[in-house]
Amino acid sequence: MTDLKGARVSVVGLGLMGGSLAASLKAAGACCEVLGVARRQWSIDRAKEQGWIDGGTTDLRQAASLSDIVVVATPVRTIVELVGDDANWQNSDCLLMDLGSTKRDVVAMMERLPVAIEPVGGHPMCGKALSGLDAAEMGLYQDATFVLVPLPRTSSGTLALARQLVVAVGAHPLIMEADRHDRLVGAVSHLPYCVASALIQTVDAVAARDDLVWQLAASGLYDTTRLAASDVTMMLDILLTNRTVVVDLLHRYSQHIDHWLGALRSGDESELEQMLRTASCTRRDRMPSMERTSE
Amino acid sequence: MTDLKGARVSVVGLGLMGGSLAASLKAAGACCEVLGVARRQWSIDRAKEQGWIDGGTTDLRQAASLSDIVVVATPVRTIVELVGDDANWQNSDCLLMDLGSTKRDVVAMMERLPVAIEPVGGHPMCGKALSGLDAAEMGLYQDATFVLVPLPRTSSGTLALARQLVVAVGAHPLIMEADRHDRLVGAVSHLPYCVASALIQTVDAVAARDDLVWQLAASGLYDTTRLAASDVTMMLDILLTNRTVVVDLLHRYSQHIDHWLGALRSGDESELEQMLRTASCTRRDRMPSMERTSE
Repeated sequence: MTDLKGARVSVVGLGLMGGSLAASLKAAGACCEVLGVARRQWSIDRAKEQGWIDGGTTDLRQAASLSDIVVVATPVRTIVELVGDDANWQNSDCLLMDLGSTKRDVVAMMERLPVAIEPVGGHPMCGKALSGLDAAEMGLYQDATFVLVPLPRTSSGTLALARQLVVAVGAHPLIMEADRHDRLVGAVSHLPYCVASALIQTVDAVAARDDLVWQLAASGLYDTTRLAASDVTMMLDILLTNRTVVVDLLHRYSQHIDHWLGALRSGDESELEQMLRTASCTRRDRMPSMERTSE
Repeated sequence: MTDLKGARVSVVGLGLMGGSLAASLKAAGACCEVLGVARRQWSIDRAKEQGWIDGGTTDLRQAASLSDIVVVATPVRTIVELVGDDANWQNSDCLLMDLGSTKRDVVAMMERLPVAIEPVGGHPMCGKALSGLDAAEMGLYQDATFVLVPLPRTSSGTLALARQLVVAVGAHPLIMEADRHDRLVGAVSHLPYCVASALIQTVDAVAARDDLVWQLAASGLYDTTRLAASDVTMMLDILLTNRTVVVDLLHRYSQHIDHWLGALRSGDESELEQMLRTASCTRRDRMPSMERTSE
């Protein structure tokens, strides 16, 4: 199997990411058939109604045996569990890919798959505030960076097929090793999540003494805390599978917070001005504009 | 003077906030004349070209002597300086209002104004990422909460006139004392600014070792760090005039960060899940949607 056009693709997990992937593949006519795999028949029925899948099953083992490509689009620890359960892959020789937000644990488990399976890790850098199938949309992957993490056992043909799938949904493949991915995504996504969550907790504590605080809140607080509303199951899996990286980043971040505290306590105007100017320039120069959503 | 309709209004400082206020007053036909006061003739000419003011001057003293209402729309420490310079108010009996982002220092200085001046503090909870006259727009104040801070010396007639002006530009008046304002706005605006700035510094330090981090950044980091790009002069004035409050809030915030660090270090799943769930629920319940911009 080297051509996406002729492939039967199973998408496992019909939430925001899986549902949108199925919808995008169907809309692009990228492959010959899209199957949906979910725990609940309801999700399969709903995705079928939307025209996002050709059919579906609650039986991953069956889907894997029928498919050329399987894309697992569940929270990370569920991916690790599904990949690690040999029963799922016994009668299959598929390309196995995932959309998990951290990659180290996933590719470590992929290394142990039966030899007939061709694994490659994946992480599309898109998403949105809402989760679940009802939030899914074709076009979610359009212009997103899509990280692909080949394993030592990943053949060039497998990687090429994975690239075809990424390009078919409008995304841009970026090849990277798992450790590097987890470190960088920790900085741009997992750390900001913790920062946003600690901020909403701090403001909520102020609100406990003066509820009027919410009436004064406007887009500044809204944007800064948006990530705190992320899906809890997804984020818990992310933090627990990227714990070492997030601890290190959060520790560095707390040192910057201490620096701000020190400069404010001393009231050193020239030092403060330098800090404000540096932060402002970095933000403007490095993130001048942004058209798409993330995580 | 108890009626806005017959009033000549001077707006001092033709940046984002002042320019938008002048434009909104003119568009609403809310008063008989709008004058612009700026340090540079260029700003006055530009605002006049836009039809946002009827005329203008670089001489605040002259404008104050001619006006029924003067609204000072500069960064906070400049407001304090202009209010505190008696020469500006010698020949005036105007209502004097400001749009400063912190209120304690401003109203303290307003208390010392000549008796003929009728002062009241103001702070509209709107704004946007860009600053300066070119970013100004009529409609900026529409539906925004607009805090009014009366002084002990503020008459009910003065407060009523200030209310008229707030309502005329489409905003909602909210009466509050200065200390309470500074404490609450510290939580919803100044603390998030520091949080965002420390975050962009942390990511920039990661980027110093691996520049690819910016390529993986998407809307999560973008939103969480947006406030870091705020106008430096404005923010420096805000932090220095609300230092005690911001130090206290940043200290509380750092305790929440320490709590996250501890929970992540220990890997206590049930504690972490509880933290994620609480933060997520608070953000969703307390800030369900937001239509306007702030600071």
